[in-house]
Amino acid sequence: MTYFEFVEKLSSKSPTPGGGGASSLVGAIGVALCSMVCNLTIGKKKYEEYESEILEILEKTNKLQNRLLELIKEDEENFLPLSKAYSLKANTEEEKKIKEETMQNCLKLASKAPLEVLKISYEAIKLHERILGKTTILAISDIGVGISSLRASLLSAKLNILININSLKDEDYKQQIKNEIDEIVNDGIKICDRVYDEVLSIINK
Amino acid sequence: MTYFEFVEKLSSKSPTPGGGGASSLVGAIGVALCSMVCNLTIGKKKYEEYESEILEILEKTNKLQNRLLELIKEDEENFLPLSKAYSLKANTEEEKKIKEETMQNCLKLASKAPLEVLKISYEAIKLHERILGKTTILAISDIGVGISSLRASLLSAKLNILININSLKDEDYKQQIKNEIDEIVNDGIKICDRVYDEVLSIINK
Repeated sequence: MTYFEFVEKLSSKSPTPGGGGASSLVGAIGVALCSMVCNLTIGKKKYEEYESEILEILEKTNKLQNRLLELIKEDEENFLPLSKAYSLKANTEEEKKIKEETMQNCLKLASKAPLEVLKISYEAIKLHERILGKTTILAISDIGVGISSLRASLLSAKLNILININSLKDEDYKQQIKNEIDEIVNDGIKICDRVYDEVLSIINK
Repeated sequence: MTYFEFVEKLSSKSPTPGGGGASSLVGAIGVALCSMVCNLTIGKKKYEEYESEILEILEKTNKLQNRLLELIKEDEENFLPLSKAYSLKANTEEEKKIKEETMQNCLKLASKAPLEVLKISYEAIKLHERILGKTTILAISDIGVGISSLRASLLSAKLNILININSLKDEDYKQQIKNEIDEIVNDGIKICDRVYDEVLSIINK
């Protein structure tokens, strides 16, 4: 699918891609910019002392980027059972029970991909933070663009998880996930805003 | 180009796509989600009273989305003269003068597309704000994902403009653009954060 078609299809009422796939793609764009800045730096004499660290980061961002691209498709696949479960009959007590159980399993499944998008976005945010000051100044704005995209995928993934797990009856599981999300998002946002402000002050220097 | 190839090429050291194209695409994803929520609402009895307004908004978002997709290519084209100007010779006084003048014109040109991305993102942010409460609750998280992406394209565009105009010698022009950016970004961010928080509180209700 071309990126043009992706955006066109996203804007339509077709069930996929939706907010889940959009978040993964925005995250992948954010990670890709970290890789780009590393690739533009490698081989430059001025940053020689950081080269081994930058190569190590690049290996990580390549993996995270590929995984986010895979998650666009996986999120769609994990969402299909839920969209089918909504239309299950619930006329008899037995049907109601089956629908309820199916829904619970489908909601958990639907939250799987966004939970991974959240965690990968957080990893990538920390990598962007690490490359700041160790990579070519000519690409300084790209770190700011990358971190802004990852802030978006992080906060988007949070909504995509919550909209699924909030209807779960397993309170322990729900609370555990919510605590995990809060911890990651609070720290992630702090890093994003700090890195963005630092990029901005370097550009304005 | 597939979205997969776009991300792959973005991550490489090839000059395009870069942070400019990335910001346009992230913005286009944000606008597309506004269209999607409108498309999912149209025809629903519950939101009948807003239907004409939603149709009007959808017409606008379709135009903004197409323009952002065009800007990915335009940003690349506008950046090429600048990347060539960097390598102009500057050995004699005459050559220095020519290089300096060329650079100034190229920097202005390179800031054109990001300036439009900034303005379109702001328009789309205001449209997301308008559809909140007037569109299907089933797509409430998509408003939050859309507004997060547009917050990213807005802040990214700001960096892409500044990195070009900060080297301009025309102080009046530079200050005028900076004032314009600040006004748009300050208001845009406020709306984004308010809409996101409202979406979050609806999801957690």
